[in-house]
Amino acid sequence: MTTPLFARVAIVGFGLIGSSIARCVVEYPGLAGAVTCVDRAQAVCDRVLELGLADKAGTDPALVSECDLVVLATPIGAFADLGALIGPHLREGTILTDVGSVKMSVIRDIGPHVPDGVHFIPGHPLAGTEHSGPDSGFAALFKGRWCILTPLPGTNPEALDRLTAFWAGCGSQMEVMEPAHHDRVLAITSHLPHLIAYTIVGTATDLEEQMKSEVIRFSASGFRDFTRIAASDPVMWRDIFLNNREAVLEVIQRFTEDLTALQRAIRWGEGEKLESLFTRTRAIRRSIIDAKQA
Amino acid sequence: MTTPLFARVAIVGFGLIGSSIARCVVEYPGLAGAVTCVDRAQAVCDRVLELGLADKAGTDPALVSECDLVVLATPIGAFADLGALIGPHLREGTILTDVGSVKMSVIRDIGPHVPDGVHFIPGHPLAGTEHSGPDSGFAALFKGRWCILTPLPGTNPEALDRLTAFWAGCGSQMEVMEPAHHDRVLAITSHLPHLIAYTIVGTATDLEEQMKSEVIRFSASGFRDFTRIAASDPVMWRDIFLNNREAVLEVIQRFTEDLTALQRAIRWGEGEKLESLFTRTRAIRRSIIDAKQA
Repeated sequence: MTTPLFARVAIVGFGLIGSSIARCVVEYPGLAGAVTCVDRAQAVCDRVLELGLADKAGTDPALVSECDLVVLATPIGAFADLGALIGPHLREGTILTDVGSVKMSVIRDIGPHVPDGVHFIPGHPLAGTEHSGPDSGFAALFKGRWCILTPLPGTNPEALDRLTAFWAGCGSQMEVMEPAHHDRVLAITSHLPHLIAYTIVGTATDLEEQMKSEVIRFSASGFRDFTRIAASDPVMWRDIFLNNREAVLEVIQRFTEDLTALQRAIRWGEGEKLESLFTRTRAIRRSIIDAKQA
Repeated sequence: MTTPLFARVAIVGFGLIGSSIARCVVEYPGLAGAVTCVDRAQAVCDRVLELGLADKAGTDPALVSECDLVVLATPIGAFADLGALIGPHLREGTILTDVGSVKMSVIRDIGPHVPDGVHFIPGHPLAGTEHSGPDSGFAALFKGRWCILTPLPGTNPEALDRLTAFWAGCGSQMEVMEPAHHDRVLAITSHLPHLIAYTIVGTATDLEEQMKSEVIRFSASGFRDFTRIAASDPVMWRDIFLNNREAVLEVIQRFTEDLTALQRAIRWGEGEKLESLFTRTRAIRRSIIDAKQA
């Protein structure tokens, strides 16, 4: 039996992502010797023990003190308070990472609480489903999906290598990026699409009852794809929009200008403009298929 | 061997939908004795014969004269001209239908060309993929999907029954609706989602090159779902927006108001408003799952 990458990993916040990481540790040998669950809800801790996803579980932040890898997996709005709670319990040499969808705000909120000698390496696995909670996770969630690390200047290369090996062992494709750049890229690939999906489904919820029931019946003609996205965790997404505010507002602005231009083309019957855009967007789909991301 | 519902069906416009109907006739016994392909492109006619999807194929609209069911399956922008071309060749007792995504404009464009004694029953199978052309069709396309007929007042009930039986034989779930109501329902379930997807993918095509290549690489985080929709046939969709203008402009207006409200909530950090909307949209997803449309 080889020594695992980490002796004991603490997962703080045991939702879809946290519980999927724990399942990777359980199912894939060599990642970590044991898992500690830290969650503010005792019911979640009980469930995690019942599911056999950790051998220790509790609400006490001091539990992280015996772990050499600590993964923060709560909604990012809780990170400032969480940093203050766990910071004092982190021991020297521990790697501290997170799975938040925004990286600048995580650095702002966690950074000040990281003691000297602790390796803080922000991260973001681009994986998820519309389901939430410790029962919804599965080990294959990260398989073939990107995991982006956004290390700060001066990060210990050995710590970066170990964290990279951990995620690669979960099945992720690894990428390193500047945190501010990460937030701009994700604003368009993830945050704007989610905001748009929430908006269009919200627009439908405001329809009169009969129309709403027909929208549900005939949802397969396009609308349905948006409802899956718009069923994602409300608190997680509230926190993403509030914490990537500038980048999100910038892409909303671009999107709105483009939508207004299309609206005007429809109003004035400018068929050529519409056809020309709809032809250009096909090319992006082809690029995604060529990049094997489809 | 039982007599099929129709002796010979003409399919005018042999793209994804037209060729899928032909495949149904070939694969499911009892729908029609034979298929005639009418397409303005000789290359399409040649390909259809090669694929064995019709025993007669040509560009001449007079070919419809020997058919007792005629299905118009071109983009709807061609319908006014098409009506004038085929109208004179329709024989008494023939059922004339279409597969267009807008029904009021089809009635406006085809109606005046329908000779007395021909049963004109507009229809719309809610089925499709992002692929186009005669090679992209398949018989299972309509299986379990809705097909909406929008008969005009005074429609012959026997003709309506025969057309209903034909689509049901293709696997469709049948529904009858007022044409104007159809156009309003589809504006929100289908036309707005497509317009939004085209817009967001268009916004991405305007990004600088490096950012664009990263959007493609990391598209799996939400953006990708939109690119599939935005790869739909450009001419077909141009025609839909131009021909359902009023209903589409009305839903764009509602959508824009809702997006502006969300944008404002993000700018001012109104987390409760965001969370409350994101919670309501989850309920719609559950309704869709309950309605077995997910």
